[in-house]
Amino acid sequence: MGMAGVRFVKGHGTENDFVLLPDTAAQLDLTMARVKALCDRRKGLGADGVLRVVPTASHPAAQAQAQAQVAPWFMDHYNADGSTAEMCGNGVRLFVRHLLDEGLADGPTVTVATRGGPRTVWVDSTDGAAPGDLAVDLGLASQPVAATKPIVTVGHLTWPATAVLLPNPHAVVFVDSLSAAGALATKPEVSPPEVFPDGVNVEFVADVAAAHVAMRVYERGVGETRSCGTGACAAAWAARRRPGVAPAATWTVDVPGGRLRVTERNDGHLVLAGPAAVVATGTLSDNWWEQNR
Amino acid sequence: MGMAGVRFVKGHGTENDFVLLPDTAAQLDLTMARVKALCDRRKGLGADGVLRVVPTASHPAAQAQAQAQVAPWFMDHYNADGSTAEMCGNGVRLFVRHLLDEGLADGPTVTVATRGGPRTVWVDSTDGAAPGDLAVDLGLASQPVAATKPIVTVGHLTWPATAVLLPNPHAVVFVDSLSAAGALATKPEVSPPEVFPDGVNVEFVADVAAAHVAMRVYERGVGETRSCGTGACAAAWAARRRPGVAPAATWTVDVPGGRLRVTERNDGHLVLAGPAAVVATGTLSDNWWEQNR
Repeated sequence: MGMAGVRFVKGHGTENDFVLLPDTAAQLDLTMARVKALCDRRKGLGADGVLRVVPTASHPAAQAQAQAQVAPWFMDHYNADGSTAEMCGNGVRLFVRHLLDEGLADGPTVTVATRGGPRTVWVDSTDGAAPGDLAVDLGLASQPVAATKPIVTVGHLTWPATAVLLPNPHAVVFVDSLSAAGALATKPEVSPPEVFPDGVNVEFVADVAAAHVAMRVYERGVGETRSCGTGACAAAWAARRRPGVAPAATWTVDVPGGRLRVTERNDGHLVLAGPAAVVATGTLSDNWWEQNR
Repeated sequence: MGMAGVRFVKGHGTENDFVLLPDTAAQLDLTMARVKALCDRRKGLGADGVLRVVPTASHPAAQAQAQAQVAPWFMDHYNADGSTAEMCGNGVRLFVRHLLDEGLADGPTVTVATRGGPRTVWVDSTDGAAPGDLAVDLGLASQPVAATKPIVTVGHLTWPATAVLLPNPHAVVFVDSLSAAGALATKPEVSPPEVFPDGVNVEFVADVAAAHVAMRVYERGVGETRSCGTGACAAAWAARRRPGVAPAATWTVDVPGGRLRVTERNDGHLVLAGPAAVVATGTLSDNWWEQNR
């Protein structure tokens, strides 16, 4: 059966962009082919991923059912290749921006169910926040048990890295200048491989001022991207632990797609704050939806 | 003054994609900054260009006023960098798809005013046409007056080329395989430079079957693209003039983004036919429109 007039929202957080599909009645037949077509930047709408907005209690997955009591909305998150994704610090802020804009949740604090477990998001009103900025608690950072410190190699350059799990894996490298890593056209090598058995995101981080860094990120399976929320948290976590650095609780992290703020609370939780912008809302062409079934 | 609820249509022809802005009241304040932001694939909607739909008589440009009697709608066409564009064989088909869908024009034949002069588009029902396909008369091809045949160079490979003006400039190269030109990461060199004083689009063309070629195109100022309507016409025009080739009137031209058909009529006019698909319609966020003023 066709689904007439599928609605969408297009938006981004620091240029990490998403197509949101409001599916309050849990009726949308979202196939892998449709996810791929939606994310295609020329024959679709174009995005890094799709976020379906579905009632948590209506999603059949056990991981959704387990969160139905704490979070009424489930972030059904897919990567551009059609695979499912656990969580995204930029995506979950856009998801809550939509819930608040549409009156689907009462602010200022909203807990969202995700494949990575419940996440709490709130309207950010701390120093440096712009109107509409949102913050999300991304939890505790940890380090892999492997005793060896990882080494990152690009071309003939090699740096020691700090391994951080959030819980997705990051290797943070401090450089004098962000141009040090060159064009990043190919994946940086990280060794020894046993530190990151599932691959790793690599952040190149340079100091800008006190408690202020800039970073570039190479995401596993994707390439260099405009922003990575957990990567910004990993960068700030590692930056404030360097010898001789005053351990400010809040760090500004400039990414190619904008500016984020990372706060390490007294309980160790990392809070990621920044913009989440809706670009447009609309309706997919019925023909297009049917042809991409 | 703000412009509440700016409407848009996103669509493509063989993956040459556009944001259409219906502006029937000629009230839209479309700045260069807004064109660039609309075409930005992460912080905007993302497109190769913008097509504003405006009454020809309401557009102040002399080139529009001169067409007001023959074509009620002007295709106000911008490239992704904010510069104006004269014409696009894929864009004008999408433009007419929109006029027909919205009842702004009566089919089956519609004449559109463009910066390159009036163009006639019609519903294509010839052999090989799919439902919804549109054809456009792109006029006569010509050749530059320069006596020297151009040479195209990629890396250490060199080919003789056929120069074709439509009226935008093309250098058509016949190759055994489309992989011959390699990654096309940089601009092919075309010499001598005096043949194409304003730069040139380069088409690499390989035979698929009788009256059927495949091509790749490197567009001046852009790079390799998924499709180029006039490039497909130039490829077919040059292909049927090769010695020993049966001069079929209609050629199928496969581009990376799909399949086009080019017919050379008895009067010499080249007709480009193929799909024009609307992906979605919607409304831009007021905040976003104001912030990108």
